[in-house]
Amino acid sequence: MLNPFFKKQKNVKLNDILKVLKIKTQINNYSVNDIKPLESSGKNDVTFVHSNKYLDFAKNTKSKLIITNKKFKKILPNKLDIIEVKNVLLSVYKITELFYPKALDDKYDKNVKIINNKKYFNLKSGKNILIGKNVKIGKNCSIGHNSIIETNVQIGNNCNIGNNVILKNTIIGNNTNILDGAIIGKKGFGFYPGNKKNIRYAHIGAVIIGNDVEIGCNNTIDRGSLSNTVIGDGTFLDNQVHIGHNVKIGKNCIITGQVGFAGSSSIGNRVMIGGQAGISGHLTVGDNVHIGGGSGVIKNIPSNTKVMGYPATNIRTFLKEKN
Amino acid sequence: MLNPFFKKQKNVKLNDILKVLKIKTQINNYSVNDIKPLESSGKNDVTFVHSNKYLDFAKNTKSKLIITNKKFKKILPNKLDIIEVKNVLLSVYKITELFYPKALDDKYDKNVKIINNKKYFNLKSGKNILIGKNVKIGKNCSIGHNSIIETNVQIGNNCNIGNNVILKNTIIGNNTNILDGAIIGKKGFGFYPGNKKNIRYAHIGAVIIGNDVEIGCNNTIDRGSLSNTVIGDGTFLDNQVHIGHNVKIGKNCIITGQVGFAGSSSIGNRVMIGGQAGISGHLTVGDNVHIGGGSGVIKNIPSNTKVMGYPATNIRTFLKEKN
Amino acid sequence: MLNPFFKKQKNVKLNDILKVLKIKTQINNYSVNDIKPLESSGKNDVTFVHSNKYLDFAKNTKSKLIITNKKFKKILPNKLDIIEVKNVLLSVYKITELFYPKALDDKYDKNVKIINNKKYFNLKSGKNILIGKNVKIGKNCSIGHNSIIETNVQIGNNCNIGNNVILKNTIIGNNTNILDGAIIGKKGFGFYPGNKKNIRYAHIGAVIIGNDVEIGCNNTIDRGSLSNTVIGDGTFLDNQVHIGHNVKIGKNCIITGQVGFAGSSSIGNRVMIGGQAGISGHLTVGDNVHIGGGSGVIKNIPSNTKVMGYPATNIRTFLKEKN
Repeated sequence: MLNPFFKKQKNVKLNDILKVLKIKTQINNYSVNDIKPLESSGKNDVTFVHSNKYLDFAKNTKSKLIITNKKFKKILPNKLDIIEVKNVLLSVYKITELFYPKALDDKYDKNVKIINNKKYFNLKSGKNILIGKNVKIGKNCSIGHNSIIETNVQIGNNCNIGNNVILKNTIIGNNTNILDGAIIGKKGFGFYPGNKKNIRYAHIGAVIIGNDVEIGCNNTIDRGSLSNTVIGDGTFLDNQVHIGHNVKIGKNCIITGQVGFAGSSSIGNRVMIGGQAGISGHLTVGDNVHIGGGSGVIKNIPSNTKVMGYPATNIRTFLKEKN
Repeated sequence: MLNPFFKKQKNVKLNDILKVLKIKTQINNYSVNDIKPLESSGKNDVTFVHSNKYLDFAKNTKSKLIITNKKFKKILPNKLDIIEVKNVLLSVYKITELFYPKALDDKYDKNVKIINNKKYFNLKSGKNILIGKNVKIGKNCSIGHNSIIETNVQIGNNCNIGNNVILKNTIIGNNTNILDGAIIGKKGFGFYPGNKKNIRYAHIGAVIIGNDVEIGCNNTIDRGSLSNTVIGDGTFLDNQVHIGHNVKIGKNCIITGQVGFAGSSSIGNRVMIGGQAGISGHLTVGDNVHIGGGSGVIKNIPSNTKVMGYPATNIRTFLKEKN
Repeated sequence: MLNPFFKKQKNVKLNDILKVLKIKTQINNYSVNDIKPLESSGKNDVTFVHSNKYLDFAKNTKSKLIITNKKFKKILPNKLDIIEVKNVLLSVYKITELFYPKALDDKYDKNVKIINNKKYFNLKSGKNILIGKNVKIGKNCSIGHNSIIETNVQIGNNCNIGNNVILKNTIIGNNTNILDGAIIGKKGFGFYPGNKKNIRYAHIGAVIIGNDVEIGCNNTIDRGSLSNTVIGDGTFLDNQVHIGHNVKIGKNCIITGQVGFAGSSSIGNRVMIGGQAGISGHLTVGDNVHIGGGSGVIKNIPSNTKVMGYPATNIRTFLKEKN
């Protein structure tokens, strides 16, 4: 994970992984560098397949060590070392915790101090601002009263952070405004529903916010689990928007008040979303899509279309049916 | 009401009640202990019936003094002392105020002071935390910056309270996390819509949060009016969830972002609710129910069913109609 | 704009306006006092027409200088000085910025200081409250901990402001309660979607809140662009309500949790809106209207009707179709 927020455990070996998974089969032991999704894993990383959707990626992965279940084991390339498990995602969660033991610790940042704004270039800052260790703030920024910027957060040039903002595990570009009361970077709401207890995924992703972005009042944006949550350049979010873990929003989008994104969807560029619309998890919305206010998007939407309703369908169909 | 938050007026007599209701009929005067719902009222309490739904309870109530209207008066047991009024709920509101004169005073807590964390066992606490009188905090808890814990709040062991959290009239179990910006325990949004002015119910209930619970960022959870608002053990709430007064949520539920509950509904155990769904007031949702994202639930849902849509119906019916 | 929040540039002349619009045609130069909507503009103000809806206003405007496009130019009265532009609203935005150069600067208020509550009559105030310059607070008010009341805000008598409240560009009547975490008065979410960058309208309106109002926890209410955002006397808003710029809500309305209003709609008196309903932009909702929870209102609603569904229709039609 290319972010400065979660310290990776060094010297993890295959045997450590097998031990965590309670697998006793012996394979030749070797070092494993990290756990990564198929498309970004390198030759020393462990990766995983748990759905048909990812089989193409699996064929081209650089990794040589892969976690999967009985069903997918048969169709994966022979050259791979395969760890067969019953529940792939639960195993991934356990191994991610092995590599990143602090990735679920979202307690308040004990390292914060009242800001010393002489440490930053032309920073204007309000009262009672708390800043963690190793925070980077670019030129000509402002930060409002009572805001908390946790350890390792990075803010670009000419950014304005409002009052009562909480930033953790977040990297922000230039000329971006974060409005009052926004809470950015907590771990996402992703679990394995257990019979007795819900088991939280590790969340080692960050929130990456581009240039010229506006994040509205009281927004909540969760960090990613194994990838980042991303808000593209020029995108504007109105008040009370909620963005789940791993969501990627493109450039120059306009997202109106109270819109919600469940986890892991990808939204294209120049997408306009009306107030209170909801975007389900694991979907792809193309470029230049218009989603009407109050719509519920539960399947992929191709580029250059206008949709409305619940489930969201082509806007003409929707209005015809309703009138 | 079994909570430490609202001081009950002592020495209330039947005549005081009649005076508040502007009823001049003379009955033998006697002491009245409290006002309670039918099912929990004791023999010295006043109780009330305003709906057919509660007639069975009325037949078995231990109370001997009951407020009702002309319609129900005829069918209630003869042994009861009946106070006949035009508007039962409005009368209940007035009498509750008689017993609990401070139950609508939600002004900021003047008794708070900066926390002295030596008073608690292994408590880790941030900056600028305000704690009221008689707050109980168990072992090994943490509280984030700028949070306000008002007088008489109780927190169990191993709990983590985030930054900017506001807790009032709340009792929390063990191993529970309350995330940044949550506001818990204010009076609910229950009124009699008056012609000139809305009249607020008294709210003497608390918010009771179980063990192993997570309450998401910027959640708002209101306290109960005559009963408590309850979040059961192991239940997780995502960001921006709103829970109205008197709602009871069972155990091990997963409630996704921006879900809203109007007042007084009961939700079973292991219920999963998708993002932005809404649950209307005074409903019963059974165990193991799945409610799709964006759904609007406006009638009771039996256990072990999956529903979706608005009004929420069986998920198969919904998807068939829509495709 | 009759509010104390945005300082108007003096000595603006017609030539300055033409320069901003990059129009080289020479007309006789004269002073222009302000930019205002058709219905409120005086004879020395510049005004504008961009939609058929406003043509009647245009015929009766007191202004003699009007911005419009080719289409409307033909049908406007001859006596007017007309500035023809391609994009009326974009031109209005530019001229508003000329008159009110600070109307988009929503950075934190640098003039705030810890409150000195001896300056106000019988004010009860919590810890860490920040107050701007020239704030007016009436008799017998209370303000909770950590709240920020920015420069020029006005609060009437007997008001209670909660904890963590942020008020800017706001005028509040008497006996009104603003609950914890509400954020009121930031600029609205109104843009011209540019190809490269979204261009924000100027927002020189205020938020005007009446007497006997309640604003719920974590509400967000944006100020108006060229008119005010208004919440009428006796209206109650539940938690997590979002109100866009220029919305006018009448008297004695009850707006339940998580309701959202896009910009510029007018809501009558005694309107009741169920939880999570959404009201689209630029609509008129009459008096005594009931809007069911979760409904999506996308066209005008006449007085004394009950609507439900998405798009919201008469409640009987809705329930018949669904059952």
